Order: sequence, then structure tokens, then C-alpha cells
Amino acid sequence: MNVNHSNTAITESACKITDEICLPDTNLPRVVIIGGGFAGLALVEKLKHKEVQVVLFDKNNFHQFQPLFYQVATSALEPDSIVFPFRKQINGYKNVLFRLAEVEEIQPSTNTIITNKGSVHFDYLVLATGTTTNFFGMDNVESHSLGMKDIRDSLNIRHMMLQNLEQAAITCDDKERDALTNFVIVGGGPAGVEMAGALAEFCKYILPKDYPEYPSSIMNIYLIEAIDELLSTMSEKASTKTLKYLKDLDVKVLFNESVSDYDGSIVTTKSGKTILAKNLIWTAGVKGQFPKGIDEKHVVRGNRLKTDSFLMVEGYDNIFAIGDIAAVITEETPKGHPQVAQTAIQQGKYLGNILLKIIKNEGVNPFEYKDKGSLATVGKRRAVADLGKFKFAGYFAWLLWSIVHLLSISGFRNRLMVGFNWAVSYFTYEKSNRLIIRNFKPKSSINNTKK
Amino acid sequence: MNVNHSNTAITESACKITDEICLPDTNLPRVVIIGGGFAGLALVEKLKHKEVQVVLFDKNNFHQFQPLFYQVATSALEPDSIVFPFRKQINGYKNVLFRLAEVEEIQPSTNTIITNKGSVHFDYLVLATGTTTNFFGMDNVESHSLGMKDIRDSLNIRHMMLQNLEQAAITCDDKERDALTNFVIVGGGPAGVEMAGALAEFCKYILPKDYPEYPSSIMNIYLIEAIDELLSTMSEKASTKTLKYLKDLDVKVLFNESVSDYDGSIVTTKSGKTILAKNLIWTAGVKGQFPKGIDEKHVVRGNRLKTDSFLMVEGYDNIFAIGDIAAVITEETPKGHPQVAQTAIQQGKYLGNILLKIIKNEGVNPFEYKDKGSLATVGKRRAVADLGKFKFAGYFAWLLWSIVHLLSISGFRNRLMVGFNWAVSYFTYEKSNRLIIRNFKPKSSINNTKK
Repeated sequence: MNVNHSNTAITESACKITDEICLPDTNLPRVVIIGGGFAGLALVEKLKHKEVQVVLFDKNNFHQFQPLFYQVATSALEPDSIVFPFRKQINGYKNVLFRLAEVEEIQPSTNTIITNKGSVHFDYLVLATGTTTNFFGMDNVESHSLGMKDIRDSLNIRHMMLQNLEQAAITCDDKERDALTNFVIVGGGPAGVEMAGALAEFCKYILPKDYPEYPSSIMNIYLIEAIDELLSTMSEKASTKTLKYLKDLDVKVLFNESVSDYDGSIVTTKSGKTILAKNLIWTAGVKGQFPKGIDEKHVVRGNRLKTDSFLMVEGYDNIFAIGDIAAVITEETPKGHPQVAQTAIQQGKYLGNILLKIIKNEGVNPFEYKDKGSLATVGKRRAVADLGKFKFAGYFAWLLWSIVHLLSISGFRNRLMVGFNWAVSYFTYEKSNRLIIRNFKPKSSINNTKK
Repeated sequence: MNVNHSNTAITESACKITDEICLPDTNLPRVVIIGGGFAGLALVEKLKHKEVQVVLFDKNNFHQFQPLFYQVATSALEPDSIVFPFRKQINGYKNVLFRLAEVEEIQPSTNTIITNKGSVHFDYLVLATGTTTNFFGMDNVESHSLGMKDIRDSLNIRHMMLQNLEQAAITCDDKERDALTNFVIVGGGPAGVEMAGALAEFCKYILPKDYPEYPSSIMNIYLIEAIDELLSTMSEKASTKTLKYLKDLDVKVLFNESVSDYDGSIVTTKSGKTILAKNLIWTAGVKGQFPKGIDEKHVVRGNRLKTDSFLMVEGYDNIFAIGDIAAVITEETPKGHPQVAQTAIQQGKYLGNILLKIIKNEGVNPFEYKDKGSLATVGKRRAVADLGKFKFAGYFAWLLWSIVHLLSISGFRNRLMVGFNWAVSYFTYEKSNRLIIRNFKPKSSINNTKK
């Protein structure tokens, strides 16, 4: 059926007929948000207690604090410290509802979304669905390696690593032991650099304690970067310092190299080098992800959705995109804004501020991105910071990194847990319990090094 | 090949030839322990720094503190607070090795165990493999319900519960919503009673906050017990008080009832009653589990291994059983000792004390069990205690329960985490983050209530 989707509140009868997912009746316009990442949650915060019904859909029941995934992967933090349940977040927001469902399709012509739990009508739709790992079509690499775009990825990396270290204690084959204890990280952006630093510290401080049977040289960490510098979006000073820090930690950095194949044991690079490693972590690319139903002609590079400067998806008048999937293409930003947390938060807040005005047909100013600077850390007590003109590195940058991240985590309890773990770890280098609970099984069997 | 398995140290060459799992060469007799529960770990502690090579095998890399599984299931604690990695436990024990492998078979004739990672020779073998849930052959019940004998079971219960509560927010079908929010716990022993109490408190204090959309009466908790009292191994006072506490929390206790069938939605009892519930937790029975290869004639009731009063398995002179699987059958204990943590710890310690004497052919005293009393808690601030002649209930019993459990948990960090969580929860009734990370899928589809 077709409902009149003007900018005024629709009648309730329409909602009740079209919805298969149970939602309370209201006379308010319904804003459906898909995805509770940085962008989606910032939008929810701006729309709480406003004259709209907000329905947040997510395939998880929790928000994820992605910047600290690498610490979960290396057992420095437990997952529950860096993810936060939506129901706690929206506690007391009477106009906000959460529904755990995966949105499979958008039907713009009927203003309906179809989820794995049924369909729901919307007046305004906001896509905040983020990105997923991009393996650029290399199926061999994808099936044997792990990305780092979901808390489950982090847990899988942790389990891969711990299982392989245990298997190394069991095998009598030197070559297999090498493969099990070598790590290759692909991508020299913040995720790859931070992961390499954390792994190197694990190797230096935890390995000798937990596995006294191994020589300290057993674990090798390789970082592969396609161009000739690390953290290419940051300053030259940051890149140079980062390289120095990683080399101090014995990370082997390969520049101007990329992975062309991987069979679960041998990494092959474009230039023909081979590295024996059963642990491959892929941080070399992302692509936008969103449900089907959006006209393909509005999809641009990196699988992002082209929006105008009010974050409205091209070709629609009630569908918006925010965060990593939004490509706000203007003369000043021909490639859109950087796909970072800051952009997502600013876009979520912006849309939250203007949406009611749009509903009321009032005039609004276009979105403007404010670069608040970048931070990246390389192991403990060392980080790089670019804050406008101020570019610095070392202990103070690390302290700043720690404070900024601690304050950004959702929930007082989580901040306390992360702070506590960091404090213990600062003085002792001791980490959390390193448990293998997930039974992670890579597609490559762990016994296939031997011919 | 056949090696001389006298009570003296064997020559190393034999070990090297027979082992497929890499282990360091020593001239010490090798004691292989299968299972690092309460019994196995108590034994390891007694054998550390002694003149034996100890090799601990476990299918997990961590010890589990089973008495608090129900708190993980109800999101009161995170799993990493109550499990502890073996490699941390044995840190600095030069004669103790841990190997992550599942033992599949014992070959007593060649003194070899066969694991999923290869075989290993032993001079002395200790089975400390514990019990698993016993569904007494009811396949329907087994395939739709969850036991509570592994930390993964606890996490599965948590995820079942949270997923079903989320699904209840989505469905428009009242009957399905009832099924999704009703809980049946089978078995009125400590595990069932503590689980029922914790669930009831979740319902009372967490549900209204997280799901303000639901009426408070939506969640019903049933506890089914086959005889006419709860905690039947404890005193009458404990049973009576426990029943009162559960009733105060609105738990519906069904005595003299047992489950005869379950299809994932409807629980059928032997007397013909039916309860609509998509959440069934089974704590009504356990059976011993151990690798194949032990002569069946030494297996007694409950799938336990019959041992003499020195814990040596009948029919062997170098194979021992400790903990839940050991049935020390004597005139005083015709059914063996109770399958509780205290027995396991005492047997592990006892065997650790006598094993070197047995190796040296010295005389030893038989095992004697000392009953240190029982404690069980029903929700916050209420517990029952039987300590010899002293039988009491209420706040002081709960305080004692808390202290005893806190001090029994392995690892300073774990004690700190549990203590912190309990303190927060004591004052706020707030619990941890209630995350659905595992994607638990029961065999019964969550949409099969409707015809």
C-alpha cells in the first residue's frame, strides 16, 4: 500500500498495517536508523526527547568501540569493556526504541525496510551501516586471514594467535613451529600500526612468561605497507616516528609491497617474496556495506553512498547516510570526508540538529567537517599526535591518546574497567586471561605445513 | 614397542621414540594428568618442584570455576573473571608442562595416551576429567535445552536468554512472547537453585530497566524438582529456607515432577503438565566423562571409575582417578564420595602427597574425605549454610558464601574483578554489559511457536 510521506506526522493506522515488527503507536514521524556505530549513536543522542519516534536497528545488541579492537585481539582488554549495550545507552529515552534485527532490504518506493525479523515502515531513514573489510577480490587471502572490523574479528584474532602458540608447543616440526609463531599484518594505517605494536609487546613481555619453553626469537612480526610510508594520512613526523618505534620493537616493516596470495601458511607478495606465517591480519582496506535497494547509480568509490551537503542520499528526499558510508561529495571534498570516528560523530550530531528542521521545511546550513587531529599509538608509552600545527610524539602523545580514548568509551563502568586494566598493565605488563573460548577454526587446517 | 614400566624412572630414549607431542627430555618419571579442574589443579600444585615430570592435558587452556557459572549465565560476571589460564597457574613450575589437546584414547597396555594432536607416553596417568550433563537419553530435551557444565554453556544460556528477550520485543504474537520470556530450570540442587534465584533477580531488577516496554509480569521462572525437597543433600532447614527465598522471588517451584519431553517451546512433565517456554536449563544430572580405553568392568554407576582407597583405578597399577569421576568404593562409602569441589580438591591434594611415595614403593594411608560443609545462595543477601552442627540461613550465610567463593577463585586479578563486580552489583543491582557476541542458535528455530 502507498502512504503519503509528507513532512508532517503520518496517521497511525498506516504504521500499524505495514509493520510486522512490534512498535508502539505514536503520532510522531518515525526516524529509522540502521546501525548503532559512532554516527548512529551520536544521532540517537541528538534526537532523544525530541518530537520524533526513533527506531534503532542493529544486528548486534551493542555499540562497538572500534579504536580499541586491537587491544581485545592481543588480550589487553576483554570485549565487554569496549562494547556497550544499546538498551543501557537508551535507558530513559522515551521516544527511542531498539530492535535487534539485520536489515536486508530497503524499499524506497514504499518507505519500508525489510529485516530478517519482518518489515517496518519509516518516514525518514538514516543509513549508518559503516564499512567492512575489503580483500579486493582475493578469495584465498579472505578465506585464510582475519580482518578487524567487528569485535568478533578481534576475538578470532586472539583465538587464532593463542591456538597457534599452543600448537607450536606441541609440534616437533621446526618449520611448522615457525609458521605458527610468525605474524603478518597487512596495511600500515592506524589499525595495522597499533596491532603490530601491541603484538610486538606481547612477544616481548608475555611470551617469555607464558611459554618459557620457547626461545624469545620465535615470534616474528611483519608489517606490509603498499606505499613508502606508514600512517600516510598523518604528518611526515608521525610517519617517521612510528617507523622508528616499530623498529625498536623488532617489527619487520616492508614498504612498497602488497600481498598477492596466501594459502594459510605462505604469504606471497606482488614482488615475489614469500613469508611463512599461519597468522595473517588484514587491515589494508574497507568498503561500505548497506542493505540492497538503493539505486546503484548513487554508489561511489569504496561502495559509499553519494550524499548532498545535508547528508541526504542523492535521488531520495527522506533517506540519509552518515559515517563511513556517507560520501559527501562537494567541490571542497571531491572524495568525501575521511572515514574516521570523528567524521561519523560530527555527521551524526549534525543530522540530529537539522532533521527536525528538515521535517518542518525550515532552512539549514550544510555539513562542515572540523579536523580535530589524529592520534596513533605504538606499544606502551609511545604515540604520535597531529593536532593542527602541533605535531609531537612520545610519552606525552601516548598519555593524550590514553585520556582521549578513555573518555570516548561509552559507559562509566567500561571506562573504569579499561582504566583499571591499563593501570595494571602500565606497571606490570600483565594482561588479561588469554582464554580460548571461541573454538576458532581457520579454514586452513593447523596441520597443513608439512607436505 | 614395549617399555618396562616399573616404579623407577624410565630411560629417556623410550620417551623420545614413543611421543608425537613435543615434550622436553628428562630422566624423571612422567605423570600425565588429564583435566585441569579442581582435582587436576590441586594435584599439579602438590607435584610442582617435585622429582617428577608433570604434563597436564586439557581441551581448554583455562581452569573453570564452576560454582559461579550461573553468574556468567545471568550476566552478573564476565567469563574471564572466573576462568584462569593454566599457563599463568604453572608459571615458574619448572617440572610442569601444559599441552592443549583433547585426549581421545588411553592404551593401558603400552602406557600411552592418544590425543587429537598426537600420542604421548606416560609412567603414571591421572584421570581428572570430571562430568558432563546427563539428559538420561532424552534426545529431544538434550537438543533443545542447555546444561551448565562448561563456561560455554553459561555463555550459551546468557545468549539464549538475551536473544529471546530481544525477540520478544519484536514479535506481535502474545503467545510467542510468553514462550520467549518463560524460563524452566530442571533440577533443585545447588546449580538449579542458584540459577533460579539469579534469574528471578534479573527479572526483578534488570528487566524493567532494559525493557521498559514489557510488563513486569512477563517473565516466569519455573523450577522443577523430581523429589519433594530442594538441596536434598543439605539439612532440612536449608531446604525449607531455600524454598521460602525462591517463593519470595516469585519462582514457581514444582515438586515431584520431572520433564519427559521438550520440543523447544513446550515442556511436558511426567504427570502430563505442559509449560510454554523457549528457555530450558537442565541441571538435573551429570555423568562421568573420560577417554575410551579403560576396561568397562571398572565403570560404575554415573559412569564413574571404581578406585581403591588410594584412588588407583581398579585393574591398573599406574592409573588413578580423582574428582567427580572417581568412585572410591569402600564399606563406608558404598556410592563413593559426593561429586563436589571439596572432594575433588581433597583427592587432588591427597594423590599429590602420596604419589611420590607410591613411586618409591613406600607405604601410604588411604584417602579420607572431610566434609567441610555446604553453602548455597538464593539471590542477593540470602544463602543457606550447613557447617557441621551449625545450620543457618540469611544475610550472614550469604556473606560467608561470598567470602568463601571469592577466596577460592584462582588469581589475584580474578578475585579483584569478581569483588569489584559484586560490590557494584550489591549497591546498584547493575550487572555487566549483557552482550550477544556468540550468535547462539538453538536447534529449535526461534519462530516456531506459531503453527
